[in-house]
Amino acid sequence: MSATINVNQNILEMEYAVRGPIPQKAAKLKQEGRNIIFCNIGNPQALGQEPMSYYRQIISLLEEPRKIARERALKELFEESTASDLRNDDFIASEILDLSEEILAKTGKGLGAYTESKGYFFVREAIADFINRRDGFAPESGLLADPEQIFLTDGASDGAKRVLDLLIAKETDGVMIPIPQYPLYSATIKMFGGVQVNYYPDEEHDWALNRDALESAYTQAAEEGVNIKAIVVINPGNPTGAILDEGSVHEVIAFAKERGLAIIADEVYQENLYGGEFISFARALGDEKSVALFSLHSISKGFYGECGHRGGYLEVRNTPMVAGTALNFVDLLLKQASVSLCSNTVGQIMTYLMVSPPNGESSVRQQFATEKEEVLGTLYEKAVMVREAFKKMDGVEVFGKTGAMYLFPRLNKLPAGTDDFGYCMALLEETGLCTVNGSGFGLKNHLRIAFLPSKEQLEEVLPRWVEFHNKYVKG
Amino acid sequence: MSATINVNQNILEMEYAVRGPIPQKAAKLKQEGRNIIFCNIGNPQALGQEPMSYYRQIISLLEEPRKIARERALKELFEESTASDLRNDDFIASEILDLSEEILAKTGKGLGAYTESKGYFFVREAIADFINRRDGFAPESGLLADPEQIFLTDGASDGAKRVLDLLIAKETDGVMIPIPQYPLYSATIKMFGGVQVNYYPDEEHDWALNRDALESAYTQAAEEGVNIKAIVVINPGNPTGAILDEGSVHEVIAFAKERGLAIIADEVYQENLYGGEFISFARALGDEKSVALFSLHSISKGFYGECGHRGGYLEVRNTPMVAGTALNFVDLLLKQASVSLCSNTVGQIMTYLMVSPPNGESSVRQQFATEKEEVLGTLYEKAVMVREAFKKMDGVEVFGKTGAMYLFPRLNKLPAGTDDFGYCMALLEETGLCTVNGSGFGLKNHLRIAFLPSKEQLEEVLPRWVEFHNKYVKG
Repeated sequence: MSATINVNQNILEMEYAVRGPIPQKAAKLKQEGRNIIFCNIGNPQALGQEPMSYYRQIISLLEEPRKIARERALKELFEESTASDLRNDDFIASEILDLSEEILAKTGKGLGAYTESKGYFFVREAIADFINRRDGFAPESGLLADPEQIFLTDGASDGAKRVLDLLIAKETDGVMIPIPQYPLYSATIKMFGGVQVNYYPDEEHDWALNRDALESAYTQAAEEGVNIKAIVVINPGNPTGAILDEGSVHEVIAFAKERGLAIIADEVYQENLYGGEFISFARALGDEKSVALFSLHSISKGFYGECGHRGGYLEVRNTPMVAGTALNFVDLLLKQASVSLCSNTVGQIMTYLMVSPPNGESSVRQQFATEKEEVLGTLYEKAVMVREAFKKMDGVEVFGKTGAMYLFPRLNKLPAGTDDFGYCMALLEETGLCTVNGSGFGLKNHLRIAFLPSKEQLEEVLPRWVEFHNKYVKG
Repeated sequence: MSATINVNQNILEMEYAVRGPIPQKAAKLKQEGRNIIFCNIGNPQALGQEPMSYYRQIISLLEEPRKIARERALKELFEESTASDLRNDDFIASEILDLSEEILAKTGKGLGAYTESKGYFFVREAIADFINRRDGFAPESGLLADPEQIFLTDGASDGAKRVLDLLIAKETDGVMIPIPQYPLYSATIKMFGGVQVNYYPDEEHDWALNRDALESAYTQAAEEGVNIKAIVVINPGNPTGAILDEGSVHEVIAFAKERGLAIIADEVYQENLYGGEFISFARALGDEKSVALFSLHSISKGFYGECGHRGGYLEVRNTPMVAGTALNFVDLLLKQASVSLCSNTVGQIMTYLMVSPPNGESSVRQQFATEKEEVLGTLYEKAVMVREAFKKMDGVEVFGKTGAMYLFPRLNKLPAGTDDFGYCMALLEETGLCTVNGSGFGLKNHLRIAFLPSKEQLEEVLPRWVEFHNKYVKG
C-alpha cells in the first residue's frame, strides 16, 4: 500500500444515493441468494423490458454491414424453399435493410471511426427536425432548431455535467435545483465546486412551481453571497414522476429572464406520459431571446429504455456570449467535447432512431407502434398497481400527474425515532424490494420506487409491502 | 442572444491541438471539395481499416439476440439447399453463435441495461486474466490482477480524466508529463486546475527516459511551490510513436518511488509494435508495493481500431489510502464512476473481446489471426514508406523504435520566420495532407503524422510532400 494522498475534496464529499448504501445492501443480499427486486433505478431492461426490435435490428446490421447483402440473398433462398421451420417474420424487412444501408452511408466509415466532436452531423440534423416537429416550429417562425447548437452525449448525465462544468466558474457560483432532485445534480454541482441552491416545488399542488418559491430561494442564497447562474428543472420529474403544468414552465422562464439565469431542462422522460401533456421548455420559450436554454434528452428512458447504450443529446438555445471574449458558450462546449473525442457511435445512432421513428403504414411501422403501446401501456398499469397499494398503506400519500417511471410517496406516519432510510432498509430486508429513501433526493419522509418490475412480481410483492408498512408504522 | 456570462476559466484557457486549427482548416477544405487525407488523428477505420470480423459478428448478435437461434436454423436450411448463391462462409460459425450465447448470459439482461458502475464483473475478470497472461503473473506471485481494481471506461481518455480529476486537489498540485505529449494530458490537467510539469525524453536516444531529466523537472517545479503527485508515461509514445526501453520503465518506477509519486501509464498502443518489445508498468513494478499505478488500455488502437465504440479500462495497483479517511483511492473512483452510471455496454463487450482473443485451431481463430497480421503488417509497411520519404526531405530526422501509429519527425531546416504550424498549414493547402504541428504537443520544429492512409494514398501523396518540403525549406 502506498502512502496516503490528498484527493479532490469535492469528490470526497459528494454523495450519490441512487447507487448508495441501500442498493449496495441489496446487491449483497442478492449475492447471498435472496430474491431482490431492484426498483432503485430507472433501468427498464434490467427488469425484463424488451428492447424495440426496430432499434436493435438496425444497430445489428450496422455492426456487421456485410449481413445486409446476405439478408437479401437469404430471403430469396427462403422464398424458394419449402422445407424449413423458418417463418417469414424471421427475416428482416426490406425496409430495415434499405434504411440500414442509408444510415451506414451517412456515417461515412461505419461505427468504428471517431465522429465529429459534436456527433454525426446527420444525427444532429434529425434531432433538429424532431424538435421542430415536436414543438411546431415552422421555418418562418425563426425558431427552428440548429444542428450546430446540438451535441450528442453519452447519456443525458454527460450533457448535464458538461454544462455545469462550464457554468461553474468559481466557488460562489450557484445553481438552483428542485427538492426533491435527481442526485446527479447535487453530486455534479459539488464535484465542480459550486453551490447548490434548493427550491421547493409545491408537493400538494402536483409539484407545481410558483414564483414565490423560486424568488425566496433565490433571494436567500443571493443574500448569502451566492452568484446564481442557472436553474435546473426536471420534467417529467425525477424522483417525483410528476408532469409539470404549462403555467409552471412559464413561471420558470419569466423568473429566469428577470434574474438573468440560464435554464437547464432535463426532459429525458418526455415520452413517459400517462395522461398529462408534456410542454418542452423550447416551445414555451418561443421567441424569447434573452434566456439561455440547455435541454437534455436520452435514449435511456421513454419506451425504449436503452440505458446501457449511453446515448443522448444536449440542445442549446440563445447561447450566451462568454465575458471578455469573442466566443460563445457553444464554442466552449465544442472545445470541451473535443477532449473526449466523441460520444459512442451506437448511442449516437440510437439517438437518431429515437428521433426518427418509422412512418407510413408498413409492417415495420405497425410492429413499432405495437411494441411502443405495449411498453407504455404496461408501465401505466404498473403505476396504477403501485398507487392502489399505497391506498392500503396507513398514512401514505402521493401527488402529481404520473409521468416518468417513478412514484414518490410521502410517508406521513413514520414512528418517532425512525426515518425514511431505516424504513427503506427494513423494507428491503423484509420483502426484497429495493427503493431509495427520500432523503437521498433531499426530501425526508418519502421514498422513490421505479415501477418497472413485471406485473407478476408486483402482484407478489405489493401485498407484502402493505403488510410490512402497516406493521412498521405502528412502531 | 442572452447577456454575457463568466465561465470556468480552466476550460476557456485549455487547448487541444488534435482537433485544433489545422484539422478545422482541413474540414473546411474538404467541404469545399478538396481531397483531404486526415493524418491528424489515430482513427484507423476512418481511413479504411476494416474492423475485426470476430468483434463485429459477436456484437451484431448481442444487439439482436433472436438471431442466434435463427442463424442455426438458416445454416440447416442452406445445407439442405442447392439453388443459392450463398456460400458456406456467408454463415456465422457455430463457435461464434455459442460464444455469443455465453456472453449474453453473462451480461444478465443484454446490452440495454445499465451495468455495475465499474462495468460488467465478467469483463473485469477477463481483463485481470489478460494482464496475468501478458505479464506472466502466476497465482503464487501475489501479483495477480484484481477485478475489483479495474474500471471499464468510455475509451482511455475517460480513464485518464477520472484519475486526474481525483488526484488534483488544489491549484498547486502538479502532474509530470512528457514533452512532446498527447494533449489530452495538458488539456485535462488545465481543466482540473492543476499544474503541468514538463519532463523531456531524450529524442536522440530513442526518446529514452533518464533519471537526470526526471529529477531536474521535478526539482525545478518543487522549488516553484508545485506539489507533484503523479507522472504520466505514454508507451508506446504519442506523438512520438517510440517504444520505451526496459531501462527507462525501471527508471520511472525508481524515481516515482523516491519522490512518492503515482504513475499514470498510458499503454493504449501496447499491441502496435513493429519490432520492439512492450514492457508494461505492471510487470516492471513487480512486487514493489509503495508506488501507485494507474494503467490505461483501449479498444481504439491496436489492430482493432474501434475508436467510435469508446471502450477501455483502467487498472489500479497499490491503491493509496486517502488522507484523513478510511477510504482508498479506488473507493472514490467508484463513487465518481457511479455518477456517470456506467460506461457504454458495447465498448465494454469490445474490451472483453480485445482481452479474450479466440484460441485453439478453429477457422474462427485462423481468420482472426489472418486479419490481425494483415492490419499490423500493413501498418508496418506504411510506417516504412513514410520513413523512406523522410530520407528524401532535407533536414528531416526521426528517432525511436516505431510503435503506435505515428511518426514524429524533427524539421531541422525550417526557414527563419517560419514555424511548424505554418509548415503544416502550407503542407495541408499544397497536398491535402492533414498533420498536426509539434507545438500542438509541446515541442516545436516537429510534426506528427498518423501513418494510416492506404498505401495507394501514401504512394500518391508522399512524393508531393517531398517536393513541397524541399521547396519550403529553401524559404
